[in-house]
Formats: sequence, structure tokens, C-alpha cells
Amino acid sequence: MHLLSDLLGRTAAAIDTPALVVDLDAMERNLDRMAAFAAQHGMKLRPHAKMHKSATLAKLQMARGAVGVCVQKTSEAEALASVGVSNIYISNEVVSPFKLKRVVAVARELEALGGELAIAVDSREGVRRLAEAARGQHISLRVFIEIDVGQGRCGVAPGAAAVPLVAEIARHPELQFGGLQAYHGRAQHLRTLADRKQAIAQVIADVKATKAALESAGYAVPLVTGAGSGTFALEAASGVYGELQAGSYLFMDRDYAGNEQDPAQPQFEHALFVKSQVISVSASHAVVDAGHKSHAIDSGLPAVHGMALEYANGGDEHGILRGAVLPALGDTVWLIPGHCDPTVNLHNHLLGVRGGLAHGKVEQIIRVDARGALT
Amino acid sequence: MHLLSDLLGRTAAAIDTPALVVDLDAMERNLDRMAAFAAQHGMKLRPHAKMHKSATLAKLQMARGAVGVCVQKTSEAEALASVGVSNIYISNEVVSPFKLKRVVAVARELEALGGELAIAVDSREGVRRLAEAARGQHISLRVFIEIDVGQGRCGVAPGAAAVPLVAEIARHPELQFGGLQAYHGRAQHLRTLADRKQAIAQVIADVKATKAALESAGYAVPLVTGAGSGTFALEAASGVYGELQAGSYLFMDRDYAGNEQDPAQPQFEHALFVKSQVISVSASHAVVDAGHKSHAIDSGLPAVHGMALEYANGGDEHGILRGAVLPALGDTVWLIPGHCDPTVNLHNHLLGVRGGLAHGKVEQIIRVDARGALT
Repeated sequence: MHLLSDLLGRTAAAIDTPALVVDLDAMERNLDRMAAFAAQHGMKLRPHAKMHKSATLAKLQMARGAVGVCVQKTSEAEALASVGVSNIYISNEVVSPFKLKRVVAVARELEALGGELAIAVDSREGVRRLAEAARGQHISLRVFIEIDVGQGRCGVAPGAAAVPLVAEIARHPELQFGGLQAYHGRAQHLRTLADRKQAIAQVIADVKATKAALESAGYAVPLVTGAGSGTFALEAASGVYGELQAGSYLFMDRDYAGNEQDPAQPQFEHALFVKSQVISVSASHAVVDAGHKSHAIDSGLPAVHGMALEYANGGDEHGILRGAVLPALGDTVWLIPGHCDPTVNLHNHLLGVRGGLAHGKVEQIIRVDARGALT
Repeated sequence: MHLLSDLLGRTAAAIDTPALVVDLDAMERNLDRMAAFAAQHGMKLRPHAKMHKSATLAKLQMARGAVGVCVQKTSEAEALASVGVSNIYISNEVVSPFKLKRVVAVARELEALGGELAIAVDSREGVRRLAEAARGQHISLRVFIEIDVGQGRCGVAPGAAAVPLVAEIARHPELQFGGLQAYHGRAQHLRTLADRKQAIAQVIADVKATKAALESAGYAVPLVTGAGSGTFALEAASGVYGELQAGSYLFMDRDYAGNEQDPAQPQFEHALFVKSQVISVSASHAVVDAGHKSHAIDSGLPAVHGMALEYANGGDEHGILRGAVLPALGDTVWLIPGHCDPTVNLHNHLLGVRGGLAHGKVEQIIRVDARGALT
């Protein structure tokens, strides 16, 4: 058997395939670009840790200015809290009484670390269940009302529908109203900047309408949180958002790179790669050992890095490469995954390489602490 | 935190969501149907363990007549061998010298258990590398030549191209020629029986041509191995196949259920489900807490079990349900995954329920030993 720690200090050539490799130099440049953007625009940055699921990376983001991280799952919050990430926002609804007990336990744990837990709701019933779980537990939960700003998923309708939820929150001393959760995921992936601007203009109008309805009912809105790697400059310029949740900027994926760039956003580099090996060659194609158990394909197939080759789906364990010049048996092929988040979730570790993929060295083994944290 | 073992003996209502649940009664009926089919047709059965990645299930299949299991990855073989699965065939190419050392180590381990390891190759270079790794290691590796019977992935062309590979195998005393690997994955999913019959007729012609070429060069073909859950009755009737590799029959997935049934095959039942919970309800739709981090979507979205609801993709962590009657907040919704194999790979455990999903009890926690075993 193979000890991962044996790889430290060796070149990327020693990495067995398939494996998920992070170009640490590129990742750190992405980290700095985003931190600088948030600082320049006076925005809080709370990156979505559902992307990397790693306490090491969450703490790195917080060390470079992030106020905390978002997660989508109670078990992600548990996994990150247990290794010292102190400020976590579950930007998703939790309604199971059993899970809500776990949420409260994490809140206690984070308060003991000097941090805090926040959570989203989108129903009065959700607020009541949350309050019931928190009652007598000596915690204070910051609660955000999710509004549906075009994603068509969770969230109450924009406008007055948020008022009875905030009123319900106000009835429970264990809860404090944190503000509005307003995220439009699909808008991130609209290809043209004009389309993204149009979608986010509607998002901002929805947020403003909801804020106005709450204010006229006597409730101040302390914070509006949302935005992703495809549009965050638009939310930052809105005058109503106070916090950005972008996550993919750290690694970038093939899909985001397909967007027309917004000059108002920093340019990010691909920092996440699947290292694969050619295991079969025929006259028409070569086959690599990385299929869709190695990388997610929900946002399309991976691109081949630095070689004029097309990757076609070869099933769970294989990829088919076609092009004018095929690689040889045993060759290394670097793939750029279509979508970071579910790709990282397939792996237990990320191997951090410093000094470039070709000649750099393995510097860090980054544990995916919340891999498979689904509940 | 939640101890999985606390679930034993409780009803499925106690299972936190999302979770992967096996209907043990349905699974065992599938197991028996396939064992009976293989016995009636005088076929060896070597189910593909890339589907379940579980030593418990591999041993159950072997206890009910399977000669061993297939895997696709060296690390899958390692994971299953380390918990006592004694007969494993890596039905895939391995060319990395480092990995081949690991292959040889597994072969030694299995021989010590009274079993054996076999492996596929599709190049002379592959045979040479295998022989080099095995030299002086006091093992005997059974080697299958993979032929491309229409999958368009790995494998030499049908016919005479296999002859120099068998000749190369014959030069190395550490290796013995096991026969032909001939699997057409895409044929499994052709919707009409007529299309599948046509595809497999070509497969069988390719196998016969290769067998004839080898026999006229003086090489007997001890075994032809292949076939999947969509077509195995056709390979079994061919007169040339001796071993069936079907894997999905154990759980069945939504995709296979979309095939026109072959009356020559036993009917299998869905035995694998994602338990999910409704976390948000609006006028137009409900949202469950299972997205494509809970189930693979390479073969399409999951079906909703026993409810007139359509599941639409809501991203990594959400599913959108639409229908005339929506479920209520907190309700349980059972999903049937589109494709078993990569779905199981997303989970650390399968929860085995006896007595039906609605009122049965959790009887078994089945570890996915080779989850994430990619190398």
C-alpha cells in the first residue's frame, strides 16, 4: 500500500493516477485576488466551503480576510467545526428535528471557539422548529430568510412574504434575524455578461423589494448575503449586498472559464486538475484512467490541459481522447474538471503542488474533511 | 454526532437524509434470480464489484455461486482483498510500473487466501510490463486479452490482432493466458431488445473471429468473459461466452428499467434507493435535500418511488419535485438513482432495510469498502 505522506517533497510525476491536484501557486493568487476585491469594495467575504469541503482551505480563506464560510449541510458544518473552523453559515434549510439538534450542538461548539453558527430558513414552520431545537440551549442563532431571486429552488417569494418569517423570528429569544439570503445559482453560468447583468438586475430588484417590505413593517435588514463566482462584481456594485459567498474562484472550473469575462471581476486561474494516465492506445483514440468517478460531469466533460485533445466520456473509469496527435501509452494527461464542487467530493485528499504541474513538488496533502458529508 | 450502529433494529424512519438504502429482500431475490440463471445456463458468474465496491456484497455473491468478482481498479482489488475477497479479476488495463507492483502484491495476498488475481491487457507493452512486475515474485497471473467488441474504448481489434499478445504472454512463465475479455457497455443501454440483439450479434461474431484467429495460430482460448445486466442472456446463449460479469442486476437502476425487457432474462427489482426529505415547499414545487452529490446523474436523473412526482436537477445538494400533489415540509421521498455504480461511490455506507422501505427495520450497515478507490 501507498502512503500519501511519502509523496511530500517529490515531483508530481510520483503522484499515482487518477488524483486531484491543486496548483498551490495559482490557488494562492486566486485567494489574493478575491481578498483584494472584497476589501476594495467594502464587502464581507464568506466563501462557500461546499466547494472544497476542507478545513485547511477554510482556515486559509479566513486567515486572508474571509469572515467565515458557508456550507449547505449540517454534516459539513460538523466536519469543519470539529477541526477548528469557527464561523460557519448553513446557507440552506434544515427542518428535521434530529438534524436541528445537531445544528444546535455545532452552534454551541462554535460559540465555545469564539465564533458563531448562522442558518437559513424559508418557512414559518422552519423558524418554529429551529427555535424549538435552540430553546434552553444557551445559544443565539443568527437566522437568514432565504428569498427566491430566480433560482426557482428554496426561498420565499420576494417582497412581503418575508415579513411573517421575520416576525416569527422576533418571537424567539434564541434567534436573531441576520438578514436576507439571496443567491441565484443559474445566473452564474449564463454565458454572456449581458445575460448575467440582466439576471442579477432582477435579483437586486427582488432584494430591494423585500428589504423595503421589511423596513415598512418595522424590521431592519442587517445584511444581504449571496453571489457566486460568475457574478459577484454585480452584487458587490448593487449597494444592497454586504457579503459575497463565491466559492469556485479558488480553483475555477472549466465551466466558469466558458463565461464571457466581466472586466469588473478579477481574472482567476485554473488551480484544480485531475492527473490521469493513458492506459490504452488505438489508431483512433487513447484512453485515460479517469472517468466520471474521478470528476463530476454535471457541468460538462473536463478539458484537456495544454494538449490539443478532446475528452469524450468513457464511463465511470475511463476517458477517451481524440486529436491529431495522440499521447503514448503511460503518458500523463492533466484534466480540468467541468465543475469543482462535486469533483472535490469524489476525493479524500487534494495534493497541493508548488512550482507548476510539470516540474513542481508535492508540498501539501489537503484533507477533504467533509467529503461525503451529505446529511 | 450520530452513530450509524444506533440505527440497527430501528425503522427506516430513523434514517437521517440523504442516505443510500438497500431493500435487502429485493436485493436477495435479485441475487437468487441471477445465480439460478447462471446455473441453468452452465455459465460462471463473476459479478462486477465496481458497482457495489463492498466486500460484504462480494462475499455474499460468492457464497451464492459466483466464482469471484471483477473490479476496474487496482485500489478496488486492494480494498476488497484486504477484507477477505479471495478471487478478483481486474477487467481493465494497468500500465504504471508502480501500480503493477501493487497488482503483484494483491496477487500474492489472494494466493495466500487460496484464491487468485487475474487481469486484462490490450498491448504487447502491457504484457511486458506485467511480466516484469511479476518476475521472481512466485506468482502466476491469469491474463485476459481485451478485444474491442464495439465499445470503442480499450481493447485490440477483433481477429488476428490478439495473436501477438497471446504469443507475448506465452513467453513469460509468470503469466498464463486466461482467455478473452469482451464487454460492450453501451449495448447494455440500447432501449429495444432488437437493437441489443443486433449489437451483441456483432460482439459474438467478433469474439468468434478472434477465437478462430488464435486457434489457427495454435492457441486455445480457455474462457470468454464479459456481458452486463442489459444483455447477459444473449451472451449466455452464444455458445462462446463462459463467464458473465453483470453487476447492476443486484440493485437495478432507473436506466436499466427503461430497457424493453428480454423474456430470456430474469426480471430484477429496484433494490437501491436514496432516502431524501422535503426541506422547502412553494406553490409550484417542493425541494428535497438530495442533489447530485447524493446520486450520480450520468445516466439521467432519479425517478421518484411510489409518488406521481417528477424530479428535476436542483444542483449539488437539492432536487426539485413537481406534480399535481406536492409532498409536505419534512416528508420522506424515496428516489431511484439513474445509475447504481457511481451513486454507491458517493457513499461510505449502504443501510440495509428488511421488511420494506415503509415499515421495515434497519438490519445491516454495509460498508462501501472501495469507495473512492480510484487508482
